[in-house]
Amino acid sequence: MVPSLVVSLFYNQGDKLAFLISIFITGVIGLAMLRKIGDKNHISTKEGLAIVSLGWFLASLFGALPLFLSGSAPSFIDAFFETVSGLTTTGATVIADVEILPKGILFWRSFTHWIGGMGILVFTIALLPALGIGGFQIFKAESPGPIAGKIAPRIKDTAKILYTTYFTITVLQIILLKIGGMSLFESAVYTFGTVGTGGFSTMNASVGAYNSSYIHIIIGTFMVLSGVNFSIYYSLFKGKWREVVKDQELKLYLGIVFTAVILITINLYMTLYDNLGISLRDAFFQVSSIITTTGYSTANFDLWPTFSKAILFLLMFIGGCAGSTAGGMKVIRILVLFKLIKREISKIFHPRAIIPIKNGEKVIPNETIAGINSFLALYVVIFVLGTIIISLEGIDLESAASSVAATLGNIGPGFGFVGPARTFGDFSGMSKALLSLFMLLGRLELFTIIALLAPKNWRNEGVNKIIP
Amino acid sequence: MVPSLVVSLFYNQGDKLAFLISIFITGVIGLAMLRKIGDKNHISTKEGLAIVSLGWFLASLFGALPLFLSGSAPSFIDAFFETVSGLTTTGATVIADVEILPKGILFWRSFTHWIGGMGILVFTIALLPALGIGGFQIFKAESPGPIAGKIAPRIKDTAKILYTTYFTITVLQIILLKIGGMSLFESAVYTFGTVGTGGFSTMNASVGAYNSSYIHIIIGTFMVLSGVNFSIYYSLFKGKWREVVKDQELKLYLGIVFTAVILITINLYMTLYDNLGISLRDAFFQVSSIITTTGYSTANFDLWPTFSKAILFLLMFIGGCAGSTAGGMKVIRILVLFKLIKREISKIFHPRAIIPIKNGEKVIPNETIAGINSFLALYVVIFVLGTIIISLEGIDLESAASSVAATLGNIGPGFGFVGPARTFGDFSGMSKALLSLFMLLGRLELFTIIALLAPKNWRNEGVNKIIP
Repeated sequence: MVPSLVVSLFYNQGDKLAFLISIFITGVIGLAMLRKIGDKNHISTKEGLAIVSLGWFLASLFGALPLFLSGSAPSFIDAFFETVSGLTTTGATVIADVEILPKGILFWRSFTHWIGGMGILVFTIALLPALGIGGFQIFKAESPGPIAGKIAPRIKDTAKILYTTYFTITVLQIILLKIGGMSLFESAVYTFGTVGTGGFSTMNASVGAYNSSYIHIIIGTFMVLSGVNFSIYYSLFKGKWREVVKDQELKLYLGIVFTAVILITINLYMTLYDNLGISLRDAFFQVSSIITTTGYSTANFDLWPTFSKAILFLLMFIGGCAGSTAGGMKVIRILVLFKLIKREISKIFHPRAIIPIKNGEKVIPNETIAGINSFLALYVVIFVLGTIIISLEGIDLESAASSVAATLGNIGPGFGFVGPARTFGDFSGMSKALLSLFMLLGRLELFTIIALLAPKNWRNEGVNKIIP
Repeated sequence: MVPSLVVSLFYNQGDKLAFLISIFITGVIGLAMLRKIGDKNHISTKEGLAIVSLGWFLASLFGALPLFLSGSAPSFIDAFFETVSGLTTTGATVIADVEILPKGILFWRSFTHWIGGMGILVFTIALLPALGIGGFQIFKAESPGPIAGKIAPRIKDTAKILYTTYFTITVLQIILLKIGGMSLFESAVYTFGTVGTGGFSTMNASVGAYNSSYIHIIIGTFMVLSGVNFSIYYSLFKGKWREVVKDQELKLYLGIVFTAVILITINLYMTLYDNLGISLRDAFFQVSSIITTTGYSTANFDLWPTFSKAILFLLMFIGGCAGSTAGGMKVIRILVLFKLIKREISKIFHPRAIIPIKNGEKVIPNETIAGINSFLALYVVIFVLGTIIISLEGIDLESAASSVAATLGNIGPGFGFVGPARTFGDFSGMSKALLSLFMLLGRLELFTIIALLAPKNWRNEGVNKIIP
């Protein structure tokens, strides 16, 4: 919160007290908790899951303080929703008019995206493969960093490489936005929202408030870059071009972006706009915003023809590459799914053949495939049950479904009742709490939290996954 | 078509010529094709798939003749759509006013449900397990009939048992509807629509036109019965009560029906109706109609609150039990999926444990699980891509999505543009053809047709699945 306090002091718009109190409360409780921790050299899986889940929950709870104390959010549940949305890099807001918020608060909101994005990179690339959750074993051998036998030094090294990459991209985008005419403050805020694939904005009309194709294209491009597996940048840095070019997830990801942009461009050109250039620009921006689960908008895509909306809805589920800051199901899982379908067709004709599923040249073990399938199934189950519960708000099915998809996938805006020109503010407190849970579930790859909710499994926990 | 001709002659409403010509054309071409078939004692998998897929296609093509020739359907594509809808027991109609149709034609439409239902029973219980498609190996050991080593005598015996059961249920329902005050003609037509889980009606208001709770309850109950795996009835007949009571799919199926009825009853009672009895009656009828993918309606459920609609939408995907006449994904696949998710959670804590997935007391092999996963994935892929294409019609997302879900799941009516008070008649010819394909895809468990569309896999076909 300290950088936000600095911004707050600089602009002096009446939010500095909120930050001072928040820093005090968080600091005191944090220090007290630190003293409570005993000497422990090992943590079990159960403890690991609890640390991650409760860590995100507590960070959201304390992170909500500045928003609540400054009166920026109407109630604490609103402030909590907003902070969960920030840290999980969702970008769904309950604040109808963000333009009246003090700059310190605006900075804090967007800064939570940046912190959250960084946290998730380490979580998915370094921690999840070690825990073997939801098929994330797939990256075990592919994380950047020296291939060491032990996990601990690898996590540390990996994290360092990731932080450096993340920081470099951040600085680069801030400079490019500054060149485009944005103030340093705006450049920083929109960069946080982009590299974290968050989506919080300083304007009610989101990026659409900037009438500059340059800015649209820079943000659009950096969104696509932020949806790429960050290991790829390490490979690029190491000069391993062949590995990058052959990466199947990257190819599919860019292929989906390209196809979606073309289809929506044609659809927009034939129905809404007369101008092919504007159709292409808006289609590119919205496709990259939705597939990377950022949620920025340059147009009210809720008013687009159903064909374009249906494609965007699909992209909400696909999401970016694994090991990026993006949410959703992740492209790699969709890739494995398609390979599974293809194999099943082959099997009808060659029932005795043993056809391995590969990622690049490596065979994916059956356990990992089962993990991926379970993840996708659980994702759909939560989406469906969530939609049914949220529909009790009395909104239409498209709004209910897209509000769940947009929170579970960490996108931000959806359609209709939660369209880009609307906010999540009109939901009841219960629904806001539930949608906050969906954001956390989606961000922590479902099983991290779901496993904690199944204490029956804790007993006789296997000892072989204790993390040193 | 001969029984329909008899009905047509009896009522003499100007459709007898259409039947005579249709019977003549179908008969001549059928006899000619019979002469073309050489002496073959074995068929390969490829040939088996082609026989099934083309068989259903040709049956729909010739079955469309009476509808087209009598002028009941405005164009041939309409007549084709209607017949596919009949044979696949979908019940989606393109005819806005069915009440003006001659009785012979009405009988023929509903009779296609009955034939289709019978065909699908043998296909899923006897043929698919032998082919091992989409996880249907699960029934290999569970088909009724003597457990013989060879497939051929088993298929024959199984078919005989299924036909007898199907026929018995049919006769029973006709009698019960007749007692309820329906004419013999109506009793037969609604019974065909029920036991085949089809849904074609003689009234524009569907079963809602009959203001009799008795009729609603009889049809509702028989829909639920028709969604049960027909092997269960064989077990009952053999006195194997314990097997029936322990059947997990049956328990889950009835549990879903029960839960959905309760939830919708409460929702209807609190919003639409003041009467708890009517709420319960309508909820029960609609839940059994949708989960069994029949598609009859006693109320315009498109006007129900979103909560109830969302539950019905979910039921469209679940469908009935495998080995019934119902469509959808089938309850057994959902059951396996939940077990897979449960196992994955256990695995996080016990990574080295080998936890088999069981159906009752039998372990389901990994190959079968992969088949089930692939099926579910392919189902969702077809649904999503189908929705995107259909949304080009310019209708809203809910209408587009539900029209695909309702055809792929062989339900019939959906929401909005294809709601129970509307028809599929307003779609373009292209969309009608595509939706016809979805009906066939859903009915033939996807892979039967999809595999045929992947001729690359035909080469070097394995020889071990040749069916004697």
